[in-house]
Amino acid sequence: MKKCIVLSSGGLDSTVTMAIAKKLDYKIFALSFDYEQRHKIEIESAIKVSKYFNVERHIILKLPIGQIGGSALTDSAIDVPEGNIHRKEIPITYVPGRNIIFLAFAVSIGEVVGAYDIFIGVNAVDYSGYPDCRSDFVKAFEYTVNKGTKAGVTGKNFKIHTPLITLSKKDIILKGKELNVDFSITTSCYNPSSNGNPCGKCDSCILRLKGFEEAGLTDPLPYMK
Amino acid sequence: MKKCIVLSSGGLDSTVTMAIAKKLDYKIFALSFDYEQRHKIEIESAIKVSKYFNVERHIILKLPIGQIGGSALTDSAIDVPEGNIHRKEIPITYVPGRNIIFLAFAVSIGEVVGAYDIFIGVNAVDYSGYPDCRSDFVKAFEYTVNKGTKAGVTGKNFKIHTPLITLSKKDIILKGKELNVDFSITTSCYNPSSNGNPCGKCDSCILRLKGFEEAGLTDPLPYMK
Repeated sequence: MKKCIVLSSGGLDSTVTMAIAKKLDYKIFALSFDYEQRHKIEIESAIKVSKYFNVERHIILKLPIGQIGGSALTDSAIDVPEGNIHRKEIPITYVPGRNIIFLAFAVSIGEVVGAYDIFIGVNAVDYSGYPDCRSDFVKAFEYTVNKGTKAGVTGKNFKIHTPLITLSKKDIILKGKELNVDFSITTSCYNPSSNGNPCGKCDSCILRLKGFEEAGLTDPLPYMK
Repeated sequence: MKKCIVLSSGGLDSTVTMAIAKKLDYKIFALSFDYEQRHKIEIESAIKVSKYFNVERHIILKLPIGQIGGSALTDSAIDVPEGNIHRKEIPITYVPGRNIIFLAFAVSIGEVVGAYDIFIGVNAVDYSGYPDCRSDFVKAFEYTVNKGTKAGVTGKNFKIHTPLITLSKKDIILKGKELNVDFSITTSCYNPSSNGNPCGKCDSCILRLKGFEEAGLTDPLPYMK
């Protein structure tokens, strides 16, 4: 059984990505990060998701990204803006270098456990403006790690899988339904209430709700509004 | 005054790299990592080095690399081998993905503080077999971060500077001497004694001692042997 790493945030996209890896019969090492994010509740969701898919191991790493700041997701002094999914500029919820850091750890762990397939649920269709979710970044990163790791230079090629990259949110949700994803254990909100209920107003909630609507399904989450 | 990030381990190479950045009149943000390494003493050296060069800020981040394991530098169950600088294979002191992770954090911080010049003291001449110290890796990483960051895609190009990459250890030491580096505050040993004295036997000590000898200088460090 081939091993893989799945970056798991407990959100919709990474959970559907994990369902896809499961369907492909991978032995799954889930990887989540406690990075002092405002929406820490996502780690609880990620744990539920790992149990749901019966993963081999769930690794949760504590990273000092909050110490770096510069994002509404990690700096409580910066407000999470209400949703505007049509904005052109890169939003303040962008965390500088986040996926570069996350993928770097995935590769490091992959090298140690012998998992050269890395799955990440990035998506460039319902585009929220994050440069580290684009295909040309992911391809360049894959090339780079195959130059800069022992596994890469000794022929055990790393492959970064992005099965959602060309899907709309609607199609991601339909794919999740097809693969029996339990949407009620996922969480997508950038700014949840203290009991974990999603705000329904941030970019991430708006995109999710729009996706469910277009898919003709009801989102089971208990939105605040 | 242009800002830069210098990755600082408190070792010889990163300290000479910092001296070069200082000479180029950069405002320096030093970046060190407490990654549960066996040779934690290097952080104390890095702090001394930052004071010596009067850096703008010294950021020390705690990373859970020890949790990942797979290297003699981070796993106390794996012994640091005695030196063999002529070995062909990648040594067990290789830390999977280390420079990918370190550079990812440098870029993240660089983006927040507005420092797009990143200095790293990697060296491919007195080659100890680390794939993440080679020029083709560094160039690929630079390309990647300019695709995957807000700074990169909005025209503030990141540049990864590797001023030592083609220098021998002897030449690095002579460059340091020319730039008034105080070698007594640096540390290079992978396996120091509890009071911080270098072992004189690991790859890193052997390379350093050989460099000083070839440079016709005396290493001021109090070696154990």
